[in-house]
Amino acid sequence: MRAVDIIIKKRDRLELSDEEINFFVQGYVSGEIPDYQASAWAMAVLLNGMTDHETTALTLAMADSGERLDLSEVAPLAVDKHSTGGVGDKVTLIIAPVVASCGLPIGKMSGRGLGFSGGTLDKLESIPGYRVNLTKEEFLRQLKDIGIVVTGQSADLAPADGKFYALRDVTGTVPSLPLIAASVMSKKIAGGAHAIILDVKTGIGAFMQTLEGARELATLMVSIGKIANRKVAALISDMNQPLGCAIGNALELKEAIDILHGHGPSDLREHCLTIASWMLVLGEKANTLETAREMVEDAISQGRAWEKFRQWIRAQRGDVRYVDEPERLPAARLIKDISALQSGYICMLNAREIGETSVGLGAGRAKKGDSVDHAVGIIVHRKVGDQVQKGEPVFSIYANDEHRLTEAQERLLIACQISDQPYPRLPLFYDVIPYA
Amino acid sequence: MRAVDIIIKKRDRLELSDEEINFFVQGYVSGEIPDYQASAWAMAVLLNGMTDHETTALTLAMADSGERLDLSEVAPLAVDKHSTGGVGDKVTLIIAPVVASCGLPIGKMSGRGLGFSGGTLDKLESIPGYRVNLTKEEFLRQLKDIGIVVTGQSADLAPADGKFYALRDVTGTVPSLPLIAASVMSKKIAGGAHAIILDVKTGIGAFMQTLEGARELATLMVSIGKIANRKVAALISDMNQPLGCAIGNALELKEAIDILHGHGPSDLREHCLTIASWMLVLGEKANTLETAREMVEDAISQGRAWEKFRQWIRAQRGDVRYVDEPERLPAARLIKDISALQSGYICMLNAREIGETSVGLGAGRAKKGDSVDHAVGIIVHRKVGDQVQKGEPVFSIYANDEHRLTEAQERLLIACQISDQPYPRLPLFYDVIPYA
Repeated sequence: MRAVDIIIKKRDRLELSDEEINFFVQGYVSGEIPDYQASAWAMAVLLNGMTDHETTALTLAMADSGERLDLSEVAPLAVDKHSTGGVGDKVTLIIAPVVASCGLPIGKMSGRGLGFSGGTLDKLESIPGYRVNLTKEEFLRQLKDIGIVVTGQSADLAPADGKFYALRDVTGTVPSLPLIAASVMSKKIAGGAHAIILDVKTGIGAFMQTLEGARELATLMVSIGKIANRKVAALISDMNQPLGCAIGNALELKEAIDILHGHGPSDLREHCLTIASWMLVLGEKANTLETAREMVEDAISQGRAWEKFRQWIRAQRGDVRYVDEPERLPAARLIKDISALQSGYICMLNAREIGETSVGLGAGRAKKGDSVDHAVGIIVHRKVGDQVQKGEPVFSIYANDEHRLTEAQERLLIACQISDQPYPRLPLFYDVIPYA
Repeated sequence: MRAVDIIIKKRDRLELSDEEINFFVQGYVSGEIPDYQASAWAMAVLLNGMTDHETTALTLAMADSGERLDLSEVAPLAVDKHSTGGVGDKVTLIIAPVVASCGLPIGKMSGRGLGFSGGTLDKLESIPGYRVNLTKEEFLRQLKDIGIVVTGQSADLAPADGKFYALRDVTGTVPSLPLIAASVMSKKIAGGAHAIILDVKTGIGAFMQTLEGARELATLMVSIGKIANRKVAALISDMNQPLGCAIGNALELKEAIDILHGHGPSDLREHCLTIASWMLVLGEKANTLETAREMVEDAISQGRAWEKFRQWIRAQRGDVRYVDEPERLPAARLIKDISALQSGYICMLNAREIGETSVGLGAGRAKKGDSVDHAVGIIVHRKVGDQVQKGEPVFSIYANDEHRLTEAQERLLIACQISDQPYPRLPLFYDVIPYA
């Protein structure tokens, strides 16, 4: 078998066999197939597509490119969640303790923020001491002991994905549905997930800006799950406006804590309850979404979710005083309200612009390896469809630098639009792709 | 400007600007743009195509990637010829001395054979002493002194082409019309050609197997010529059966010598007279093809072409005794005739199969760097449409190895097909794309 023949076959729109895909992925990871062949192949895949069967073979080949975590001993039916990324998405911080407190173990490997999109690890690192680099043994022990663990992605799992992603980033081959789907699913499968709930965002602040594109990606990943014998369902959720009100690491952590205490923005609460309910059903802790919903509401109202959260943070050496008294968390030096320039109805809160403004304040990173300021960010006081009076605050900016504050102020004025006419609220979810 | 943005633009089917194409070619040659970006770009070009304007910009950027030869002092209107390659194509050996003896200087850089397709340099090296690695100074001096020189491709001319070609060869990006056209034309333009006649082969033994494909490639190269201000015309010629009768280096050289003496196969003679006539017209040595035709016929019949040939070989240190007495040329140890298995009309002489059989005998190379046996090859005694009686020889095999001889025999039996019914002769030329 020769790499060039596999490239030519894909170039000529033929379907690759499992053996050819395995050969290519293994060869690339081992270094026998050079970058220049992998990038030509990736461009051919991007332009000519892949069948669901090919994409599944690619997913499994990438999942098998390194170590595979076996969670069956600690979690007989391991359920994972994946979000395609967005602005204000602090869902993992909430649903992990919620489902764990309902008896469903959750062991997650999360990422850092990049571009306008935030990352769970950065949010958790607002808590002094929190460890994100657990060893495999620590990960498994904590999952077994307390049923919840959230750490960074292990380089030993699906190394093909890391290598391919770095190459795709510089060769214009990122926006390929098969390559995106294989990237997401290979990491989850290598991480030992038996069932996966996918939170596929759509809208201006999402990677997939159109509903059609998001549905296509979601459907593809659910199909991979079916072929690969994993229970996978997808929710397609809105990312035109930020999720919840807080954007920025410590601000989002505080908002997550609010939700766990039974408070916080209703959109975020509803979003998390829905995701958590699906996880309990996928994990066979509940037979129906209705039963699951009661369980997760109870877990919050009776304080079990909050206790599980504290137990988790403590287990990973986070200083729980900071979550017990969130006013201890990193706080910005400068706070400035941005008020509505006219009365009316909010008709746009551009999630992407708001996310990028938050990065501009220092909350995120423009490129890998940049450091982040956990204190800074933005609070959005209204949602699309809300009525607002001229002069009432729409945003509060949390900054540590005057110049950046001024810049953020200018950007946010454009990010929000107000209409004279009543404007409908945005839905939380657009569609569900149930597991097959 | 960033390489990845240029890749993305081509990926998204947008037209690249001249600046972007220059940036990419220069960056690739200098090493700033790595192979893995160039190969992703090449795949995007292959699958999404290029406009004629883009292809011309690519051609000129590649022509400018190294030194450019200036022939204007030695040849005020330098005419070059390019064949897309085939089996039995010894045309350069004939037309070079013919047109030079008509007063049109010809300085050519030729290639070696690869795969089933032969190369002019290998044929010339059948002559002991013949030098194929002239310096630029030697090339120019000989062209000025005697009006004829044929040497190997200089690495200083269009180095981008060499680098791109090596990459395309291993990344499945060879069969792209814009990339093929730019490769051919960039070398010719860097070599100083003011006018170019293209001999674009079509058929089973050609790179472009369909007439449609050959016409598309020819039209594209003529368009590039027009945009780049070069006089370019293309002839589309048959390569279903070999050109002439001889395949193999010394055998082809002998056949070329026969033609220069006014003998040899009529198809080859007619092919060469046509090409040479076009060159005289392009080079403004004749006003019409008819006048040109008389000139080239005279050059042969009056012995001037032959004298020019000898002068040329001697100038490049070839031992002229070997061309004066071609029986001195390397001769094969074993000669075996292959006879017709039935009486009838020849309806196929598979040029590709015959070319590959010749390579199998040792006349060509399967991969770059292989050595060649100048003595071996095949003589084809009939052409498609000829009548043949059972038992009459169709081929003679010239071999230096019993085992290879047996293999060749088996292959040639399949390469020839005989019909009960009369079968039409194949045309020499299918089409002309005149300069615009």
